[in-house]
Amino acid sequence: MQRIGIADLGSNSARLIVFTCQPGQWFRITDGIKETIRLGEGLGRSGRLSKKALERAVAAVELFADYARATGLDRLELLGTSALRDAENRQAFVAAVEPLGAPVRILTGEEEAELGVSAVANGFDLRDAWVMDLGGGSAQLSEMRDRLYVEGSAHPLGAVRLTEAFLASDPPSGEEVRALEEAVDDELGGLARDLDGSRPLVAIGGTVRNLARMAQKAHRYPLPLIHGYRLTREALEEVTARLLQMPQARREAVAGLNPDRADIIVAGALVFRWLLRRTGLDEILISGHGVREGAFFRHFLDAPYLLPDVRAFSVRNRARQYPQPGAHVLQIRELAGRLFDELVPLHSMTGAERELLDAAAALHDSGTLLHYYRHERHGAYMLIAAPLDGYTHRELALIALLVRYHRRGSPKLGTFAPLARPGDKRRLRQLTACLRLAESLERSRAGRVRDVEIEVGKGSVVMRLVADEEPTVELWEAQKHEPLFRRAFGRRLELEAVRRPEKGSRATG
Amino acid sequence: MQRIGIADLGSNSARLIVFTCQPGQWFRITDGIKETIRLGEGLGRSGRLSKKALERAVAAVELFADYARATGLDRLELLGTSALRDAENRQAFVAAVEPLGAPVRILTGEEEAELGVSAVANGFDLRDAWVMDLGGGSAQLSEMRDRLYVEGSAHPLGAVRLTEAFLASDPPSGEEVRALEEAVDDELGGLARDLDGSRPLVAIGGTVRNLARMAQKAHRYPLPLIHGYRLTREALEEVTARLLQMPQARREAVAGLNPDRADIIVAGALVFRWLLRRTGLDEILISGHGVREGAFFRHFLDAPYLLPDVRAFSVRNRARQYPQPGAHVLQIRELAGRLFDELVPLHSMTGAERELLDAAAALHDSGTLLHYYRHERHGAYMLIAAPLDGYTHRELALIALLVRYHRRGSPKLGTFAPLARPGDKRRLRQLTACLRLAESLERSRAGRVRDVEIEVGKGSVVMRLVADEEPTVELWEAQKHEPLFRRAFGRRLELEAVRRPEKGSRATG
Repeated sequence: MQRIGIADLGSNSARLIVFTCQPGQWFRITDGIKETIRLGEGLGRSGRLSKKALERAVAAVELFADYARATGLDRLELLGTSALRDAENRQAFVAAVEPLGAPVRILTGEEEAELGVSAVANGFDLRDAWVMDLGGGSAQLSEMRDRLYVEGSAHPLGAVRLTEAFLASDPPSGEEVRALEEAVDDELGGLARDLDGSRPLVAIGGTVRNLARMAQKAHRYPLPLIHGYRLTREALEEVTARLLQMPQARREAVAGLNPDRADIIVAGALVFRWLLRRTGLDEILISGHGVREGAFFRHFLDAPYLLPDVRAFSVRNRARQYPQPGAHVLQIRELAGRLFDELVPLHSMTGAERELLDAAAALHDSGTLLHYYRHERHGAYMLIAAPLDGYTHRELALIALLVRYHRRGSPKLGTFAPLARPGDKRRLRQLTACLRLAESLERSRAGRVRDVEIEVGKGSVVMRLVADEEPTVELWEAQKHEPLFRRAFGRRLELEAVRRPEKGSRATG
Repeated sequence: MQRIGIADLGSNSARLIVFTCQPGQWFRITDGIKETIRLGEGLGRSGRLSKKALERAVAAVELFADYARATGLDRLELLGTSALRDAENRQAFVAAVEPLGAPVRILTGEEEAELGVSAVANGFDLRDAWVMDLGGGSAQLSEMRDRLYVEGSAHPLGAVRLTEAFLASDPPSGEEVRALEEAVDDELGGLARDLDGSRPLVAIGGTVRNLARMAQKAHRYPLPLIHGYRLTREALEEVTARLLQMPQARREAVAGLNPDRADIIVAGALVFRWLLRRTGLDEILISGHGVREGAFFRHFLDAPYLLPDVRAFSVRNRARQYPQPGAHVLQIRELAGRLFDELVPLHSMTGAERELLDAAAALHDSGTLLHYYRHERHGAYMLIAAPLDGYTHRELALIALLVRYHRRGSPKLGTFAPLARPGDKRRLRQLTACLRLAESLERSRAGRVRDVEIEVGKGSVVMRLVADEEPTVELWEAQKHEPLFRRAFGRRLELEAVRRPEKGSRATG
């Protein structure tokens, strides 16, 4: 087990994240420290880091180094981004932090862009995308193809820099806004026509995370999740219009916006608004992961630093951290999948839904980590508290609901209804019926029911439990869930036991 | 590490609970199976277990034995209570389960009562109590003195038995109710005068848990916790009156009531109503723990099977299960306690509140087990999901709120307000200020601030951070929380650093 600290010293903030991991196997973020250092303050005008900014940055590095020593980090990696890259006097900083024993690696624009793409490739189930990383000093726009960085460009369009260059009034005047937009147009206008909707636009950075959170708060979004959120053009227009009307003092109190960013958020909102207006894209997919996560994958994986399957990994990653009896879980996954497959004539679901069922089966008992009682609720809470990467918010909600209803209760979309697609209520009921029957058939955790044979009739479904000995309690338990089955599939459920020694069963199968 | 399964075969249900533990050190419930077996069905009339009841009970034992084998339990203990004790044909049952390799130990009434008292002694911070365990077949009323069982008596007043004997109509007629109450009076009337309010009445069993849950649902109780809930006379009168008006079919749909109990709940409600009416006690303290937990403590502890300090143990028990950096937690506990003590002139809190602060300090980072991000919320959720024994619900809510606000946010009672006492909002703010400042002083997790010296002035409090080297980031971080301090204690906070080598500090201290 290793503990790896990765920090970036950005134009706005310095942030350390600690990953605890077993390389290639599993990882988890276990700690973090964030400091607003405003390294980029005044940099746009003078080309130099100010004395105060330098002091703040050195203090942050000292803090991170102290922390690393005190908690025994196996590795501490400090990354400098645009502000340090661009400052004439960056050597003063490098010299000041040297005695602290924590060397700072200043990334080139391309290295920074590559790390962002790596975070996106390992955080979403996506092959191709445009990736826009908007920081305090600069913005990187990159192309991801086949999950790899292809090319990109850095632009002096960071939120701190643009604010200082263009937005002097409070709130900004119409003229200032137009001047800023023209500057953005000069920088990005040539690239905008490439962003044609054939692949999604993924955005990274504190600015866009704050915009997303504001939009979520304004519309009572049902999940407290930023990663994977789709910020629509409409929502962004609304947020930007609101921000443009407020002086900074009022912005500081806006729900979802970190007050530390109230001064620079408008500039960032204007860049993204310009981007959506100009390209005709409908939405921005928000990544909660960025340069730090990208850098972490350089340690966690071998080149080309790609998880083979983001969705499968995130389920496995989670399952390895929550101690559950492995054989029981495997059996539930197996049985739930069998039921899904055999009942295909009665539902119109495909592999995508089967994967959700499998994820829920893999994690159905994870809530026992908190408490056995009500563990179905705790498990659902945990799936939202620590979301699985690679799944959409709708999919996460469905997995959480499956866990929530895997033992009892009448499946309902509840507060997640706004995320659902037409038919999801029926799908939830059908998938829950599969999971709950699988759990019933594994009632004794003894793997007594080796297989199920299913015959779909006109008014009923006959389900034969294949076992060596009479599976009394399994039959009894499954029978309790007959009403749920009937509501889910519109057929009565008839349960029978078939006693068949294991060998014979294989031979006839 | 051991996994111990304890099951009881009661007149209404058979229930297995699995405890994972390191004897004497920590334990956790990790699994469970419940079956409604109605062993006591018809027993009151015939004195015998019915054939069907026997079959159901044998199937349940088979299930538990299968489970034990499949999951490799280190020990499985099966306890028979009143139904098996009273049945003439109990030998038929004993003989039927013998081949399953899971012998059932039939408890005497006194043994059963003792186990119930043991569960109460280890589940609450109480020295003396009356303990009423109302099951399906019988009710045990016991006296606990100095946390030990003194004496008790068993009465044929179980909910299944009384229902069969008295409540034939649906809903029960007024005459039937009176006859039942007279029977209760005959049995318990002589004892009732001892229940004089000098010690609380603690109740055990599924019946009273269901009554409590119904009362909670009816009044939107803010915690989903049964253990430690105080069911008032008023609430019980209300619940009982509601139940008496409904036929069984409607009772099956009552919120909080397990439909499996809808037939026998009225009899149980009448016993408890009689008890409160007759004794003049104001409330019943509900225990979520009973015979099974009592039996578990026989394995977990040495005689006399008492945790020395229920509250301290439950915090330690939790802390041991959630991996946290020990030195950091100790330092936070130490610093938070110091701040509390030094600020005594500015608050009117005592040892009781200091203990809450200490519990919150011990568990403040436990939410990182789920996810680092928003871990203050996850930690608060976990404290409610898996409550600490020995604390009242008000105290649990305060501990959870302290964890919730230990990093950020303006402390509010929120949905927990109905549990609070006058002044708790102020107490929460003051305790949060202590915890958050302690966390600030441990910003680098390096123990850099060794001590704090506090001088309480008229308009301000001077806080000197004693350290070997300049605690730059700690000062910086603590400064951020000055406004919270000011609101909490009505004084400005002035922070200073005192650099003093460790040895000198000890000599002057």
